[in-house]
Amino acid sequence: MSRKEAILNAALELFNETNTQSATTNHIAKSMGISPGNLHYHYKNREEIIRLLYKKLVDEMSLSVEELPRTLAQLLEHEKTLIEVQWKYRFFFKEILFLFSRDKELEALYIKDNIAHKERITQVMQNLEKGGELMIPDSETLAFLVDSVLLSWQFYNSHLHTLGEEIDTCSAHKVIEYTNAAMRPYIIKKES
Amino acid sequence: MSRKEAILNAALELFNETNTQSATTNHIAKSMGISPGNLHYHYKNREEIIRLLYKKLVDEMSLSVEELPRTLAQLLEHEKTLIEVQWKYRFFFKEILFLFSRDKELEALYIKDNIAHKERITQVMQNLEKGGELMIPDSETLAFLVDSVLLSWQFYNSHLHTLGEEIDTCSAHKVIEYTNAAMRPYIIKKES
Repeated sequence: MSRKEAILNAALELFNETNTQSATTNHIAKSMGISPGNLHYHYKNREEIIRLLYKKLVDEMSLSVEELPRTLAQLLEHEKTLIEVQWKYRFFFKEILFLFSRDKELEALYIKDNIAHKERITQVMQNLEKGGELMIPDSETLAFLVDSVLLSWQFYNSHLHTLGEEIDTCSAHKVIEYTNAAMRPYIIKKES
Repeated sequence: MSRKEAILNAALELFNETNTQSATTNHIAKSMGISPGNLHYHYKNREEIIRLLYKKLVDEMSLSVEELPRTLAQLLEHEKTLIEVQWKYRFFFKEILFLFSRDKELEALYIKDNIAHKERITQVMQNLEKGGELMIPDSETLAFLVDSVLLSWQFYNSHLHTLGEEIDTCSAHKVIEYTNAAMRPYIIKKES
């Protein structure tokens, strides 16, 4: 692993453990046993590091449109993958709006990606309807289902945190129960 | 209004405009035309100010158990009141997990209140069922409905923000459409 890459990993670990304000570039350098100057040779500031971590997050979660889930079973597998990525970069979702208020470039980047993500979720719901697995009665219900998936993917762990629940790789999967419950009234039961 | 109270109001305004890290106690003092020393005569630090603002938020939203909504129409009115409070203290919900990571006392306080809040929402859903307005088929559905209300109250505005939607007092009410859509399949239609 290159030094540049190793710095990103060390930053990710510290951000997840504490928060992006406590973990300064000096702390990140210290945790690796390198000088602050060496870190700043690779990265201008903490904002640059956070932006690059965000780009890695996007790379890890992005699926091309061809790969979008076409069945409920595929959607479940897809959700599991996204939850793993969310967990890996959990500092980001904990601080998301605070990070936006400090870095408008990051905010613009995220919003653009998120709008595209929302369009893909809409596409998935419409695929499930075409495939006879979901019955979506009207556009309000479609909007609600899409909202449920996106809202909970971004904020369900934060929600659990506000109730004092321990968040770990296991509990991070609870969001699946939430999205399943949102879809349940609209799932078409197959005759067996 | 006392100087002590005026400082809280000035802090709230600055926190909502920027974020709690950019708005230092020096900035708050400056915005009021008082000296930092004068501010620190009233408040030890920014954490104390944030904690007091949180307590005001709780005072404004708390309803005694006797006052809990017993019909869907009352629930709607209740939601509108809570949304106004949420909007007034919006910095808090934007930064909530970041604030917790900086102030464990605030975190413990919030979690305790939020667990009680969740119990009240559960009570409301059960009241609506007893009153013949909701048909809740099982405990998973009850958990989902309670989760929907609490998750969206805390994070729906943040969710809209991540999609680049302008948040104002008007759009802050969109969360009602979300919770209505979550309840819709379980609402018992009255014969007219």
